[in-house]
Parts: sequence; C-alpha cells; structure tokens
Amino acid sequence: MKIAVLGTGMVGQAIAGKLAELGHTVTIGTRDVQNTLANDQPNFYGNPPFRVWQEQHPQVQLATFAEAAAQGEWIVNATNGEGTLAALHAAGADNLAGKVLIDIANPLDFSHGMPPTLSVCNTDSLAEQIQRTFPAAKVVKTLNTMNANIMVNPNSLAGGEHTVFVSGDDSEAKDHVCDLLRSFGWRDIIDLGDIRTARGPEMLLPIWLSLMNALQSPLISLRVVR
Amino acid sequence: MKIAVLGTGMVGQAIAGKLAELGHTVTIGTRDVQNTLANDQPNFYGNPPFRVWQEQHPQVQLATFAEAAAQGEWIVNATNGEGTLAALHAAGADNLAGKVLIDIANPLDFSHGMPPTLSVCNTDSLAEQIQRTFPAAKVVKTLNTMNANIMVNPNSLAGGEHTVFVSGDDSEAKDHVCDLLRSFGWRDIIDLGDIRTARGPEMLLPIWLSLMNALQSPLISLRVVR
Repeated sequence: MKIAVLGTGMVGQAIAGKLAELGHTVTIGTRDVQNTLANDQPNFYGNPPFRVWQEQHPQVQLATFAEAAAQGEWIVNATNGEGTLAALHAAGADNLAGKVLIDIANPLDFSHGMPPTLSVCNTDSLAEQIQRTFPAAKVVKTLNTMNANIMVNPNSLAGGEHTVFVSGDDSEAKDHVCDLLRSFGWRDIIDLGDIRTARGPEMLLPIWLSLMNALQSPLISLRVVR
Repeated sequence: MKIAVLGTGMVGQAIAGKLAELGHTVTIGTRDVQNTLANDQPNFYGNPPFRVWQEQHPQVQLATFAEAAAQGEWIVNATNGEGTLAALHAAGADNLAGKVLIDIANPLDFSHGMPPTLSVCNTDSLAEQIQRTFPAAKVVKTLNTMNANIMVNPNSLAGGEHTVFVSGDDSEAKDHVCDLLRSFGWRDIIDLGDIRTARGPEMLLPIWLSLMNALQSPLISLRVVR
C-alpha cells in the first residue's frame, strides 16, 4: 500500500518505520519540509531531530501534508492533537476523500499546565471532530492508548497479552485497519463501535499519565479481561 | 470495623454484603428509611427491591445517612454520583470528619441520553469535589471501574488477574483501603497518587460502557500490563 503518515514526531516515526519495514511505500507529511529538515535540535524528550531518523530510513519520503496525502491510498494522522485539524486542512479534503484515515492522535491541552488535560472529551472527541470536518474520509480511531514503540511492537510487552481498540463508522475501513494491526503483531483487537466510541480510548489519557507516573515507566498497556 | 455504606442500590448491597460476610458491623444509610423499605418494585435492572435483599442479610442495619455515618468508623460512598454531595451533606460533615471515606461512585449524567456521559471530568472529578467539600474526611477513590459483583469477588473473573486503582491524599487511609481490598481478594492494586488522579479511573466510564456493549457482558475489567 501507499501510505501517508502525517506528523514527524515520535509516533509518526515509529509508524512510518514499521510500515516501511512491512513493505509499504511511505511518505511522511509535514507542514514545511525545509523547516523539518533544517531542525538540528533534539526534541523535548531528548530524541534526535527528524533529519537523523530520515537518514536511517532513506526509503521513507518527506513531503508536504498535501503532497503526502495526495500520494497515500491510506492516511495516518500522527500529528499533535492540537494541530490535527489544521494539518488535515493543509492535507486537503479532496486528498482525504474516500480514503481510510487512521487517527492515532490525542487531543492534549497543555494550557492548564502539566500533566496535560484533554481539549475535547466526554460529549465529543477528536476523532468525531475529524469525521465531521471531513465527512468523505473513513476515520478509524486506534493505537492512541499506548507508547509509540508498543504501538508497532505489541509483543515487546507482556508477550503481546494486551488490547488495542478500534472505533469508526465504516466497517470495511475497520476491517482493513484490523488487518494492519495484526501485521504489527496485535492479537487482541476490540471493535468498540462507531466513531462516537472513540471518546473512551481518548479519555484513557489521564489514567495512562497517572500510571506512567506511578509505575515510573511508559512501557504500560491495558488488557481487557473478560 | 464499624462501616457505614451510603446507598441502597446494587453497589451498596454488594459492598455491604461482602463487608458483613467478612465480619464487619455494617449499617446502610439511605435518605428515607420508610420509603426505602416501602418500595416493593424491582429496580431498572430487574433486581428485587432493597427489602428483599435486607431480609436475606438481617445482620445489616438500615438507617438514615446521618445515623449510619455517625455509627461508622469508615464510610463508603455507594450512592449515585448525581446524588453524592447531597447524600454526604445529609450524612453531615461532623460525621465524616477524620474518617476514611471510600468513594466508589461514578458521576453519571443522563441528561444527554444514553449512554450516560460524565457530569464532571478532565479538569476535576467527583472525588476531588468530595474532598474539597469535606476537607476533614480522608477520601480514597477506588472500585468504580468494574461491575459490583466483580468489586467484591475479583477472583470470579480471569482468576483475579486484573487491576484496581486507589487515589487519595492521605497515605495511611490508602494503606487501610488497600488492606480492605486485599480482604476482598484483590492482588493487583495500583496507587495512582493524590486525589487528582481520581480523574483517570472516573474517565474510564465511556470505554467501560463501550466494552460492555461490544462484548455484550458487564463481566469485564482491565489489567495494567507492564
């Protein structure tokens, strides 16, 4: 598949790298290609700048949001939740129409200080906002409930005995996304229902942050026992 | 211990029954004792009225919120989240002062229809509201993230291999609550931190409701894998 990954951060890198490893043709989308490549500073978490990552992954192309989205048969939203709608507008509604749009973002709000809260929740969600704004896209929410490394290597934690969720209005799109998740190694995939059910996984953020703090590790995930 | 359980619903019954079985002296608190005993209708879920339950548990006393709270060395809030603050005001701040107050409630809001949303979340929680309103009580949030039967019989599901959370500002109170949870059979207990961390478990409600719907069972719980 030709897949566009929007976002150059840790999540975008992890997803793009895994997709390329699995043989997909991947283009990463960014707001400003020159700016992204010119940045030579480690990020907030001390990770090397994007340019270093790209030198290690020469098969992954870097392009504008619009160029990447135009090339992609599927789109992955791995931008910051704050910037998601602007990034998707830059990608262009026509370039999203009819395509599976995998939304991995969390709508983090840092305006109340640390830890972040959510900019939307309870009676709405980022995934619903995306689906309403781009009604011709087939939005599927998934993978927003764990660390980027665990997203693409679920078997690296607890032998893979944990759960990933999918939410979306289009059943066929969800089936495709489940196949993709299985190709990452996921075995316990729960279809929560329509796009409104994305509120649940988005609202896991506060407990995830508390758990990371209590357990002093980001290598945590949830298993639904039943 | 002498323990007051505020609330006559399924959660109150399950907790009171378990505490009595473990040898504690339990008084259930309600707004109006005569009304509670006069009710002879099954509830919304088809369960028998409180009177039937009490006939099966004659060692558990029924009293007003204030009488129950006055007698209890510990207080369990098993009321509806909507009615929690009113119930605790009826119980009386003096009857709560200095005591462990175990908050099991979820702040459900049915005004937007089904499924319910939360009346408070993200930047506040019901547990924080209780702690602010009754600063002399030692509020510990726990057990709000699973079905009432699983709360008191964790080993009835997946061999007990799932997680319960505690949040609160008073470490000693949390230690006591952890001992109580262990006496119920809980083995995986995570202390999330201060009372603000109650936002996380309260915000699990939407995914819990989606999971119940997707899996067609309320017998579900979460295990934190790490």
